[in-house]
Amino acid sequence: MATVLSAHRFAGRISRMQASEIRELLKVTQNPEVISFAGGLPAPELFPVEAIRLAGERALSRHGTRALQYSTTEGVPELREWVVTRLNAAHGTSFVADDVVITGGSQQALDLYAKIFIDPGDTIVVDNPTYLGALQAFDAYEPRYLTIETDEHGMVPESLEHALDQERPTQPKFLYLVPNFQNPTGVTLAVERRREILAIAERFNLPVYEDDPYGEVNFERTPLPPLVSLDPGGNVTYAGTASKIVAPGLRVAWMVIPDPEIREKIVFAKQGTDLHTGSYAQYVLLEYVTGGDQLERHIETICATYGKRRDAMLAALRDFMPDHVRWNSPDGGMFLWTALDPGIDTGKLLLEASRENVVFVPGRAFYPYKDRADGMRLNFSNASEARIRTGIERLAHAITAFRT
Amino acid sequence: MATVLSAHRFAGRISRMQASEIRELLKVTQNPEVISFAGGLPAPELFPVEAIRLAGERALSRHGTRALQYSTTEGVPELREWVVTRLNAAHGTSFVADDVVITGGSQQALDLYAKIFIDPGDTIVVDNPTYLGALQAFDAYEPRYLTIETDEHGMVPESLEHALDQERPTQPKFLYLVPNFQNPTGVTLAVERRREILAIAERFNLPVYEDDPYGEVNFERTPLPPLVSLDPGGNVTYAGTASKIVAPGLRVAWMVIPDPEIREKIVFAKQGTDLHTGSYAQYVLLEYVTGGDQLERHIETICATYGKRRDAMLAALRDFMPDHVRWNSPDGGMFLWTALDPGIDTGKLLLEASRENVVFVPGRAFYPYKDRADGMRLNFSNASEARIRTGIERLAHAITAFRT
Repeated sequence: MATVLSAHRFAGRISRMQASEIRELLKVTQNPEVISFAGGLPAPELFPVEAIRLAGERALSRHGTRALQYSTTEGVPELREWVVTRLNAAHGTSFVADDVVITGGSQQALDLYAKIFIDPGDTIVVDNPTYLGALQAFDAYEPRYLTIETDEHGMVPESLEHALDQERPTQPKFLYLVPNFQNPTGVTLAVERRREILAIAERFNLPVYEDDPYGEVNFERTPLPPLVSLDPGGNVTYAGTASKIVAPGLRVAWMVIPDPEIREKIVFAKQGTDLHTGSYAQYVLLEYVTGGDQLERHIETICATYGKRRDAMLAALRDFMPDHVRWNSPDGGMFLWTALDPGIDTGKLLLEASRENVVFVPGRAFYPYKDRADGMRLNFSNASEARIRTGIERLAHAITAFRT
Repeated sequence: MATVLSAHRFAGRISRMQASEIRELLKVTQNPEVISFAGGLPAPELFPVEAIRLAGERALSRHGTRALQYSTTEGVPELREWVVTRLNAAHGTSFVADDVVITGGSQQALDLYAKIFIDPGDTIVVDNPTYLGALQAFDAYEPRYLTIETDEHGMVPESLEHALDQERPTQPKFLYLVPNFQNPTGVTLAVERRREILAIAERFNLPVYEDDPYGEVNFERTPLPPLVSLDPGGNVTYAGTASKIVAPGLRVAWMVIPDPEIREKIVFAKQGTDLHTGSYAQYVLLEYVTGGDQLERHIETICATYGKRRDAMLAALRDFMPDHVRWNSPDGGMFLWTALDPGIDTGKLLLEASRENVVFVPGRAFYPYKDRADGMRLNFSNASEARIRTGIERLAHAITAFRT
């Protein structure tokens, strides 16, 4: 199944409900009585506060006024070097620091990519459902969405091929994917499908944007070669971030852009958008990630903690949920996906749930068409195991109450 | 004189020369032999490195994991409060923290404002010449520029009125101004003109964007009421920044947006662009600016130092420049404007000057039409008085050599 939809023009007709769903939910969650599975927040109690304090000192003592001055749009050279050294070591690639552009979080990377590619009415290709933040970034540039069927192993290559065939002679501008532990579903794109999708993309001359915020939040340590490592043609732009493995408040992420023409346009777009990402935050991150093995140990802690929280959520779902509720079991990331009977609107369920002091993100927002409403995104990274169990019990009550 | 021009579509036809002029110049200036009047860099030797180190410690010890977690799109509440408390105290206004949106430098504020206002072909109104970074932000959204005559007291109200009259029935989307110590010219908009321009803008229903990075870099302490303080109608959006009074590497700036509809759209646009400005950088700035009187003392140091450097540049211009060269004498900011005979192209002069190891920004880039080439923007904040004198002497040689 593949269809297209004209997005709303950003500056004109803002759909208020769609716009601020996540933002409004973040506000509700400030009530401590409420157990939130809604946000995409890392566990703050794991933040390496002391190590970042020390990194902040070193950022100034080692780099001095460079950490406070204007910097190049591409980013701090040593941090760009660290990005590719780490990626190359993990995946046998040979990217160089010049391939990297540092961005203000991965959200900015989405905005910049959309800005250089999308003219109003252009078609872009996405999973269905896909990441809401990506839709928000893209919508501002008024694309049409070509949505591709997605199952428990991610985007279905045959559906992609069929949809692109049917689109001819229209040439979509790019394919957007979150291959590892996708937001919202937690689904991981099967490795063999990665190769098939890359081959299709190459045949159709379709640039690929690989959004990978969760790849290192990998509980089972299954090998997950990024698409950019499987693509000899330079067709893939890869986006990584420090938000999930260090701290989102630094707002430092990165793009690896093998294609020099795309890279030049991204740099030019970024120059007009914010000149450059904060030098200070970049040097603080640099000093943290190059401080011995503390990053690796920290990622181990995150994976162990989130893995136990996922297990607690799965156990509570088994123990409390009525029979008609289904869910998946992701091997990493921060979310799992729960589906009710197709007739149920989880947007309406949310009202009932918030009366029970538990919230989630209704699935509708993640579909470009807003044409399915039976899903729920449940975050398991931000609450303790005990609160997760209590929250799922409350949610099960809400579901039962909602149906009767 | 008023004319209109269709801008280049950002994603398509990037004019390489226009695009990267400043960026390329920043690279040249990394050669220590070169004396640069080109950048817009604050003096790094004045950066309050130790005070920021301490502010970094307090950001984490006082605010803990909040300084590292995702935050609201609008910004850290205490910092928004500080912005309006300071503005209200200086100018007798009564803005509230809810009017403020924290942005990633003032460049992001320009991008967001353009994003919500400009559809391709829309007209916007600017000084001629005007700030290059603003043109770069706006160009991405494909406006037409209505350029207004500017003299030694800033935009000429009669010219604005005449141009808006002639534009009817076209309704320009907004008026962009840098009223204090403008970049590139150093010119300050006369206070009586501020009132006249506000009255015209109100009559033509024209929103005003007041870009004020330099207002506090005021050597003579002349009172400079911002337009937003003279405007009872809520028609003005005001943009300030920490870049010139603390450090640009933090990348923290702010918009004061009295109009709730504009503010809501800016917040929505920012959510899609980068979710929020770095929490850590915001708390570090908060702790610095609320740390006793260190900010006020620091601003005094900046003004005293830059004032002496301006004086050194003025003395050297008098001592070395050939007769046909004219310049102005700004009371603040970081730039002055130098004009040669109308027939001279300072873009070509730059080649000669760089051979003499001195660089500047040729004036052409600051004109939306690129139809004047005889000006030079000279920065006086970034070099010592001795280097300023040597640099102006070299520049005078280059001008003489260029003409013969």
